[in-house]
Amino acid sequence: MSETNDKNTIDFWFDFSSPYGYLMAEKIDDVAARFGRKVRWHPILLGVIFQATGSRPPADGVSNKGRYMLHDFARSARFLGVPYNPPSRFPLPTQNAARAYYWLHGQDCGLARRFAHAVYRAFFVDDLDISAPDTVLDIAAGLGIDRETLAAALQAPEIKARLKDECEQALAIGVFGSPHVIIDGEAFFGADRLPQIERWLESGGF
Amino acid sequence: MSETNDKNTIDFWFDFSSPYGYLMAEKIDDVAARFGRKVRWHPILLGVIFQATGSRPPADGVSNKGRYMLHDFARSARFLGVPYNPPSRFPLPTQNAARAYYWLHGQDCGLARRFAHAVYRAFFVDDLDISAPDTVLDIAAGLGIDRETLAAALQAPEIKARLKDECEQALAIGVFGSPHVIIDGEAFFGADRLPQIERWLESGGF
Repeated sequence: MSETNDKNTIDFWFDFSSPYGYLMAEKIDDVAARFGRKVRWHPILLGVIFQATGSRPPADGVSNKGRYMLHDFARSARFLGVPYNPPSRFPLPTQNAARAYYWLHGQDCGLARRFAHAVYRAFFVDDLDISAPDTVLDIAAGLGIDRETLAAALQAPEIKARLKDECEQALAIGVFGSPHVIIDGEAFFGADRLPQIERWLESGGF
Repeated sequence: MSETNDKNTIDFWFDFSSPYGYLMAEKIDDVAARFGRKVRWHPILLGVIFQATGSRPPADGVSNKGRYMLHDFARSARFLGVPYNPPSRFPLPTQNAARAYYWLHGQDCGLARRFAHAVYRAFFVDDLDISAPDTVLDIAAGLGIDRETLAAALQAPEIKARLKDECEQALAIGVFGSPHVIIDGEAFFGADRLPQIERWLESGGF
């Protein structure tokens, strides 16, 4: 898989702990491909975004809205035909998974994409603790990636800086949640904007 | 138009100042009718809901999220083929419109429904100040309703109590925003849940 920086590229910003991010991740590449477009994935940390924007995590599980959202995650997954099991630990910090993604992306962007899918499924299907470095290394090892090389990369200052830069770039362009998809400069927030994304790609705007 | 209280009835909770509520209002009766279902409309006051739930109005117009939402209101209206002009005063208090709705509903529920559509269009198409009692009376007069009778009704304690009761009932059943549609005990929040609502009505759940 090759990724380009041309203006046709779709940007997909997400946190590995975001259920709607997971739903978008399962769909966006196929939707884009139907219209001859490619997607650049950007894992970020919602904690950083929420702290900078003064937002709160939407799904607290306690308030009416929080309980609704936990229910809606599962229903939206069924609606989109995506496997989903509510994780027992939620949300989780995802800096290890995100750093691993950026390091892998520097080696092989197709492998990075497969790793991202595997992380999301580990969390939202197999209920694994993707915050743990060992889990991230296990997922990578399952894709043939050397554990020790990746373990060292997770501590590399340039990889930490890359994730920090991506979060700052996200804030600079107005990202406030996950998933956040940008097409032709137009922002679409939420997996429920997939129908609008398809219309946009079909019509070149509407 | 007759409204029933049977278990097949769909409940539609909304605030007259809610753009996504307006979009749902333009669609929900037709969607329901396609599946032989009727809709009971419940205007409520989001200010009361937000105060009780500790939520904040989502579209402040200043933050990244707030600016996105103003943009998304218009785009979602285009997507759904609904006329929309961003109101110059937003949001607005809507107790007069909601009280008028409940009083009219006691007289003629079909007329109340036409009034509700007219209020929404006055706000989101014609940019009228629907918080003003005079505007509400003008809209009603345009439907042949006597201004003075309605003006008196807006001050009636039983009409004020009815709106208060509806807001309390909304809170009691978990409503936290607008639009909030309840079908067979299943809650759907947001105009962007219309595809899920259609699937639910088609399949009897999914």
